[in-house]
Amino acid sequence: MKVSIIGVTGYSGIELVRILLQHPNVEISSIHSHSQNGKDIDEYLPHLNRLLNLPLEPIDSTKIMEQSDLVFFATPSGISKEIATTFVEADFPVIDLSGDFRLKTDGQYEKWYKNSSAPFEILQNAHYGLADFYAEPTSKLIANPGCYATGTLLSLAPLVQQEIIECDSIIVDAKSGLSGAGKNLSESSHFVNSNENMTLYKMNSHQHIPEIMQQLKKWNENIPAIQFSTSLIPVTRGIFITTYARSKEKLTQEKVLNLFQTFYQEKPFIRVQDQDVYPNLHQIVGSNFCDIGVAYNEVTNIVTVVTVLDNLVKGAAGQAVHNLNHLAGWPETTGLNLVPIYP
Amino acid sequence: MKVSIIGVTGYSGIELVRILLQHPNVEISSIHSHSQNGKDIDEYLPHLNRLLNLPLEPIDSTKIMEQSDLVFFATPSGISKEIATTFVEADFPVIDLSGDFRLKTDGQYEKWYKNSSAPFEILQNAHYGLADFYAEPTSKLIANPGCYATGTLLSLAPLVQQEIIECDSIIVDAKSGLSGAGKNLSESSHFVNSNENMTLYKMNSHQHIPEIMQQLKKWNENIPAIQFSTSLIPVTRGIFITTYARSKEKLTQEKVLNLFQTFYQEKPFIRVQDQDVYPNLHQIVGSNFCDIGVAYNEVTNIVTVVTVLDNLVKGAAGQAVHNLNHLAGWPETTGLNLVPIYP
Amino acid sequence: MKVSIIGVTGYSGIELVRILLQHPNVEISSIHSHSQNGKDIDEYLPHLNRLLNLPLEPIDSTKIMEQSDLVFFATPSGISKEIATTFVEADFPVIDLSGDFRLKTDGQYEKWYKNSSAPFEILQNAHYGLADFYAEPTSKLIANPGCYATGTLLSLAPLVQQEIIECDSIIVDAKSGLSGAGKNLSESSHFVNSNENMTLYKMNSHQHIPEIMQQLKKWNENIPAIQFSTSLIPVTRGIFITTYARSKEKLTQEKVLNLFQTFYQEKPFIRVQDQDVYPNLHQIVGSNFCDIGVAYNEVTNIVTVVTVLDNLVKGAAGQAVHNLNHLAGWPETTGLNLVPIYP
Amino acid sequence: MKVSIIGVTGYSGIELVRILLQHPNVEISSIHSHSQNGKDIDEYLPHLNRLLNLPLEPIDSTKIMEQSDLVFFATPSGISKEIATTFVEADFPVIDLSGDFRLKTDGQYEKWYKNSSAPFEILQNAHYGLADFYAEPTSKLIANPGCYATGTLLSLAPLVQQEIIECDSIIVDAKSGLSGAGKNLSESSHFVNSNENMTLYKMNSHQHIPEIMQQLKKWNENIPAIQFSTSLIPVTRGIFITTYARSKEKLTQEKVLNLFQTFYQEKPFIRVQDQDVYPNLHQIVGSNFCDIGVAYNEVTNIVTVVTVLDNLVKGAAGQAVHNLNHLAGWPETTGLNLVPIYP
Repeated sequence: MKVSIIGVTGYSGIELVRILLQHPNVEISSIHSHSQNGKDIDEYLPHLNRLLNLPLEPIDSTKIMEQSDLVFFATPSGISKEIATTFVEADFPVIDLSGDFRLKTDGQYEKWYKNSSAPFEILQNAHYGLADFYAEPTSKLIANPGCYATGTLLSLAPLVQQEIIECDSIIVDAKSGLSGAGKNLSESSHFVNSNENMTLYKMNSHQHIPEIMQQLKKWNENIPAIQFSTSLIPVTRGIFITTYARSKEKLTQEKVLNLFQTFYQEKPFIRVQDQDVYPNLHQIVGSNFCDIGVAYNEVTNIVTVVTVLDNLVKGAAGQAVHNLNHLAGWPETTGLNLVPIYP
Repeated sequence: MKVSIIGVTGYSGIELVRILLQHPNVEISSIHSHSQNGKDIDEYLPHLNRLLNLPLEPIDSTKIMEQSDLVFFATPSGISKEIATTFVEADFPVIDLSGDFRLKTDGQYEKWYKNSSAPFEILQNAHYGLADFYAEPTSKLIANPGCYATGTLLSLAPLVQQEIIECDSIIVDAKSGLSGAGKNLSESSHFVNSNENMTLYKMNSHQHIPEIMQQLKKWNENIPAIQFSTSLIPVTRGIFITTYARSKEKLTQEKVLNLFQTFYQEKPFIRVQDQDVYPNLHQIVGSNFCDIGVAYNEVTNIVTVVTVLDNLVKGAAGQAVHNLNHLAGWPETTGLNLVPIYP
Repeated sequence: MKVSIIGVTGYSGIELVRILLQHPNVEISSIHSHSQNGKDIDEYLPHLNRLLNLPLEPIDSTKIMEQSDLVFFATPSGISKEIATTFVEADFPVIDLSGDFRLKTDGQYEKWYKNSSAPFEILQNAHYGLADFYAEPTSKLIANPGCYATGTLLSLAPLVQQEIIECDSIIVDAKSGLSGAGKNLSESSHFVNSNENMTLYKMNSHQHIPEIMQQLKKWNENIPAIQFSTSLIPVTRGIFITTYARSKEKLTQEKVLNLFQTFYQEKPFIRVQDQDVYPNLHQIVGSNFCDIGVAYNEVTNIVTVVTVLDNLVKGAAGQAVHNLNHLAGWPETTGLNLVPIYP
Repeated sequence: MKVSIIGVTGYSGIELVRILLQHPNVEISSIHSHSQNGKDIDEYLPHLNRLLNLPLEPIDSTKIMEQSDLVFFATPSGISKEIATTFVEADFPVIDLSGDFRLKTDGQYEKWYKNSSAPFEILQNAHYGLADFYAEPTSKLIANPGCYATGTLLSLAPLVQQEIIECDSIIVDAKSGLSGAGKNLSESSHFVNSNENMTLYKMNSHQHIPEIMQQLKKWNENIPAIQFSTSLIPVTRGIFITTYARSKEKLTQEKVLNLFQTFYQEKPFIRVQDQDVYPNLHQIVGSNFCDIGVAYNEVTNIVTVVTVLDNLVKGAAGQAVHNLNHLAGWPETTGLNLVPIYP
């Protein structure tokens, strides 16, 4: 299968290249960038020298549809809602890594992204591609979930679907490395500001909140809201999410762990840890794994879920390829048995 | 005033030296170390060359009481409960930075520290020195609070004392730099393991939980328990605590901020941030400040408190000197107007 | 081909697993560890869960020779000189990543490693496997070069072989990340000591000096000695080597760059940079590339070579697989087109 | 003494504030910023809240000369050469931390800074304030040396003044933390680019080369040139310089160490290490110390000097205050007994 990548010079686009270069069924036929076109990619990204020999091209949808079988958008929010419509209207497969096609309720995108949304019918038609939870997509337009959303939903799915917890008790304390904040130069991404530091940002206003709520309500319509915070930690890659929720009834450590292990036993990319073991970033960086540890506190009746994933793989490019595998009808792990980089 | 420091080669002891060398009313008369005695301190700690010219001595309580007016214990848990009793029985002033004299209820120390406690009467007599909340100590034996306990109690004091929140709703997600884990060599403190990583440790079992509960119950006996988690982040210094609690009634962002600002307006080391501003580690590292930001989420009815402090200063040596100032009757900021090291 | 790995729990052994799991012609048939045997490897190394399902076994040379076609030693210095002899005597292929079989001159190993050497005949028979510089090994016992040695030799080969520089003018200032110092717990590998720090170690006494000299003298017997320093920088992976040498005659920037580009044009893993471009660690981490930039200073007549490589790949496991490819007669890039992890 | 600071929001200006707030003889009477004026400084730099209560003012030289006794320029290069002249012409004391008044030879500033220089007579009159090497300034206009220049000159002074080394053999491999690159947002200061990385920059073209040569030639006019390279390492503060030079005659480790120890024995801020001990960044960060270790290699006849200093203190604000002490006739250590921040 031939694929094109639009927005290849952002971190998610770069990671798509790394993964697709090792995918047995895929060839990258063209790469596109708004800002850098004309250059060869390895002039701009020297790590790709001798690995990918393609020029950065401007975006020409007709040409892309002639040359390729599918297009990835790895663009910042606000781009694909404009450009992807041409592909969608031509019934050409699109996997969009941005937030532009995730929110289905009228007005939600406007509220959280401070921008006009894609056309309503296209939003309705898009498939929210939480890749561990489905096998056959309902649409050729796949909205790849956000990195925090992926980790939060995988943390909560067993608890919410099995109705174990009090619906209004969910508190999510999420931390991300700096690659999650993108390539843009800003005060908060200056080395001197982020090194040896930690900062909470977007207090009660992160744009992943509505897509998390949209999916949680699908699973259990009684969830009214979640408390969701995001902080930056001084690492390059990795998301670490600590989720708290109050059990409806007294549980045991064994019961809650068993619930997670049973729930996820068929999922190749989700590794529930053993009892009293909690995952850290090193065991997943570079891979498509999401590792989850669970604890129950008998004194407070709180279930704690510790979830780690690589924001650029499981939280972006890896999940996009997982969605590609679903769309193409290949085994879901095709090209995704990436070994974590350790140490 | 002449002081001695026992356990000077640990991180808290080293930081005590830094602060006391700049304190106008104090002279360090002797320094003591179990493991390194015989050497001059600057052989072991080259940063102190030309700044402190003292040998590391073995611990001789009689000699210390002759030469000094007060002794600091900056030893690991389990040491001062044995050695400090001689000083206490002689009514000689002791400021203990370890956990040995903090817990007053019978059996608590045994349970959380897995060790026999100090004699019961001595525990009863010790003054838990949360230095921002008192001016005149009730005892010459001061138990300096733990670093996490200090930050958590300062985060919760206004909410708990003013009975704003539901008593069973407190969730504390605390993160610490590696200096908080001490100088011991361990897998988790190896650079390769902690760099580019984050790990949750002591799930539901951190030994600062009982001292936090002991103090919270003094302020409001209806608090039944807290959910308290601790994680390591890859920085050397700094504690970052995110605390969540549910408001009893609907509030506003203004109201909850005003509560904190009023509550702490007379406290020289606590800086409540302006609205929509949340503190980060850089603004306190190297200083005795504890900076606090507060938010209220109208959708979830949750108050979020973001608190930062330097674990070695406000969370250890700085608070110990604050306690010294109280004990000596000096203005509380004496020698503690330390400028944060930024950048 | 079936291979066994002895010393699989060290950083080089772990990296061998990552690379071999992605090698099309190789199956890992057994893994061995002195210290951890009995456990499954993913208990000890959770990142390998679901990727490698093998127990850590004790070392039984007969069984290994029955089950496998080749054995890797990824042990610390001093182990393989004892254990590998059984394999060598049975003419069984061995690739040794340690320093035990690199030095051929009598007394050199004793001097630099402070230990008795392997038998003299075995040392003579071993092939020093600087993998970019040969295609057919002269022995089934391959001594994989050291990480610093690899980078230094690749920096100097064009200058020394072409006799461009004054023989006594070579100064090598090499820096390494902490994974180069191994898994052992030590003061210098404690996070608090190495974070935000840089340290020069083994002044004039690094054990890679003799293997560098041995190879340089093969290329040009007039090189009398090199000045070689090693420092630790606070990163996990990567070696950064700055090499200085005085040109015999006046050169130009173009000439010296052209020399390097011509010299290395057929080498798939060595990427000489364009003029005025100097490589950094990010462009090689996770890959088998060695990237080299060259400058000439007209004022001082000094050639500066800037060389980067991943100490665990090109400097250890990647070069070992490169040597495996040579030994097996496969194309040299088989299984080694690893895409650098960027960002 | 009352002082004003122009350019207070840059890293050197911020560090001047930290040091001057603890200086017994100085009061900061006004602070000035081009870009941020109108704000209170603690709005912009929250770490200074409660420590410095001054507004950021525009630059009004008349007012500054009325209110203050001396002015510091902590501005980027190219500013003070314009603005400082008013003060200089009024014979008002100026300490300039930028490169604008350091180079005395016509055309040098233009060549290295790509900008027109200050007026020739003012350059001639300025005093190059290498503070450890003089006590009485020859001018009220002090050009504070660059950070790399300070470390390089202190590394070389004994060797060059005592004519121990071959004049054309000096190679300086200097490394700096990111704060040395300033507050500007750039690709190279983005956390994701500099974290876990090392980069050589300004190959053979760093603007500190001419001020180093100017001073070396004063000490020994036979030094023709130096090879000088600068790399960024992923730390916030600290310069680590490794200097190599060939001895004219065979030496011993003892002799060369003795030379340094004797040479620097009266200098309060220079701490020559014991034999076989080499300094690291941790022992000087936050202080005005420059620590130096020396080795001699009998095989290569090379002297290696390892020098560390805090680029913002000894390399900028601390040396500026040292120069202030000289200018005011105070003991040189006044206000500068800063204890390094360790850990």
